[in-house]
Amino acid sequence: MTDTPQRPISLAVVGAGAIGRGWAALAVAHGRPVAIFDTDVLAADAAMTEIAGRVHALVALGRATPAVADAGLSSLRAGRSLLQACGDADWIIEAVTEDLALKQRLFENLDELALHGAIISSSSSGLPMTEIGARCRDQTRLVVTHPLNPPELIPLIEVVPGKFTAPQTVETVSEWLRGLGRIPIALNREVPGNVVGRISAAVYRECIDLVLSGVVDVDEIDRAVSLGPSLGWAAAGPHLTYHLGAGEGGLGVFLQHLLQSFEMWWGSLAQWTKLEPEQVRALTALVEKSYGSQLEHIRGARDRRLASFLKALESSRRTSTPSTPSAPRAGD
Amino acid sequence: MTDTPQRPISLAVVGAGAIGRGWAALAVAHGRPVAIFDTDVLAADAAMTEIAGRVHALVALGRATPAVADAGLSSLRAGRSLLQACGDADWIIEAVTEDLALKQRLFENLDELALHGAIISSSSSGLPMTEIGARCRDQTRLVVTHPLNPPELIPLIEVVPGKFTAPQTVETVSEWLRGLGRIPIALNREVPGNVVGRISAAVYRECIDLVLSGVVDVDEIDRAVSLGPSLGWAAAGPHLTYHLGAGEGGLGVFLQHLLQSFEMWWGSLAQWTKLEPEQVRALTALVEKSYGSQLEHIRGARDRRLASFLKALESSRRTSTPSTPSAPRAGD
Repeated sequence: MTDTPQRPISLAVVGAGAIGRGWAALAVAHGRPVAIFDTDVLAADAAMTEIAGRVHALVALGRATPAVADAGLSSLRAGRSLLQACGDADWIIEAVTEDLALKQRLFENLDELALHGAIISSSSSGLPMTEIGARCRDQTRLVVTHPLNPPELIPLIEVVPGKFTAPQTVETVSEWLRGLGRIPIALNREVPGNVVGRISAAVYRECIDLVLSGVVDVDEIDRAVSLGPSLGWAAAGPHLTYHLGAGEGGLGVFLQHLLQSFEMWWGSLAQWTKLEPEQVRALTALVEKSYGSQLEHIRGARDRRLASFLKALESSRRTSTPSTPSAPRAGD
Repeated sequence: MTDTPQRPISLAVVGAGAIGRGWAALAVAHGRPVAIFDTDVLAADAAMTEIAGRVHALVALGRATPAVADAGLSSLRAGRSLLQACGDADWIIEAVTEDLALKQRLFENLDELALHGAIISSSSSGLPMTEIGARCRDQTRLVVTHPLNPPELIPLIEVVPGKFTAPQTVETVSEWLRGLGRIPIALNREVPGNVVGRISAAVYRECIDLVLSGVVDVDEIDRAVSLGPSLGWAAAGPHLTYHLGAGEGGLGVFLQHLLQSFEMWWGSLAQWTKLEPEQVRALTALVEKSYGSQLEHIRGARDRRLASFLKALESSRRTSTPSTPSAPRAGD
């Protein structure tokens, strides 16, 4: 099914939490007809208001065109049943809680009621498609499409096929994602946490450890990670950063100088794999002390920074030669 | 010693490698008189040309004012001896190879010849100041000021006091760093790799592991890390990202939903602490295959992206209210 301006694909989003609302806002802002469904009817109703708000915010941030967004908003609806929301969708996006049994039951139902030719994707941040869809008759049309938060602003989508996913499914969903201004990156195979979950878990463990052990305060480490490594990696991924880190010698020379340091650090990184309840309480208290509770205000400022980074990427992409290898690209 | 427009501080940079050249370019671009020294006279001469080139690049990127940069360039000199380069400097920045014994010998010499009241800082990415300066008579004026690559573009500087560093040294060097448009973040105590080395080591280990195990290609994981987590963390550090990740509930609610996933990922992350020579060869070959050897061209594109991110941060800072908590800020 090709997504064209004349006949845009229709989407159904199942799950009206933060991620489902973000998917819906993204698709609506691009003028796609969207139905949203949640077993919690009140949550679905609240989502309708918030999705409209997020779409207007995208327009205000320069990330959506008013006329296109209005067309999308006029086609946004809350489905009153799973069948009513999903039965005629070209693409069903699951965005329910990260719970394997719950997702498996939902996928069994979606497998029954979805259109022939529809694609069903999971927003799971780390559960394998092969397990989520294990009880479906047609597993060729199932695929993980994992967004980051907020889905309507961060361009990366991890596309992870299960063992039985058809290559055509990966290709089609990637094309649809590009139509929504996303950057799909396909993994070769399933691995716990995909790329993003693993990188995030590795960083978060160190960030928690450094804060709980008193080396640095919550807001100081956040600023350090923002204004140091993250800014660097946003401009050039880790492999490229180190390849560029030692003049013309490339990675080989870089590792001659710094492999010993990295090996020392690898040996000293945090190794724990659980957080005790009292550690969760201590961490939550420190984070709340740093950031207070004006979350909407802070979120607005974060989203403005994200939007201006995306514009910066797009403008530096326009000014570089098309052959620039591995320039991170934003937008479609 | 206060750094004023009438009487700017003078700097000496010891070590004419990539980091030393970056420090020199940064200070020159801000109009400070800089002397650079390297025991390898040819390297020092080559550095003079490259520093001038980097200063011109900063002007072209809109990160330096032509008149100020010209003033800096007219005062840039290569010292013919350590004493000649450093003897009258207010601030001596060590940027030699990451080798404890080498740094210790150098600091012993600097301790002898530096001006009374000068500050001597080390660019070490992870060696503790307490060990580097162990043989110095005056350890109160020694401090780590660790930049990222390229130092003239990435704003973060980790400031890490040793056991005997005076609080005034941390304060003064932080003020001088802000005068160069840097964002100093002071750690409460020494820890292997500081914050940046630990975060970088954690990310790089996963990136290497995912590539060597065939889950994803070098350029794909680089783009994923760039356009996903890094872009997100550049706009809001990890603690804040997760605090914002579950609507109004904050971190407490986020962890209720996702701690189980994180614990699963923590348990499955790479744990190795050494890279075997054949792994280094395989990794280097994959990275070279992805990025070829046009490093200068790629580096130019990376630097343009960095400069446009910095402008984006500065402009979103101007448009947000001054009370916005923890907005990553770039520039002074």
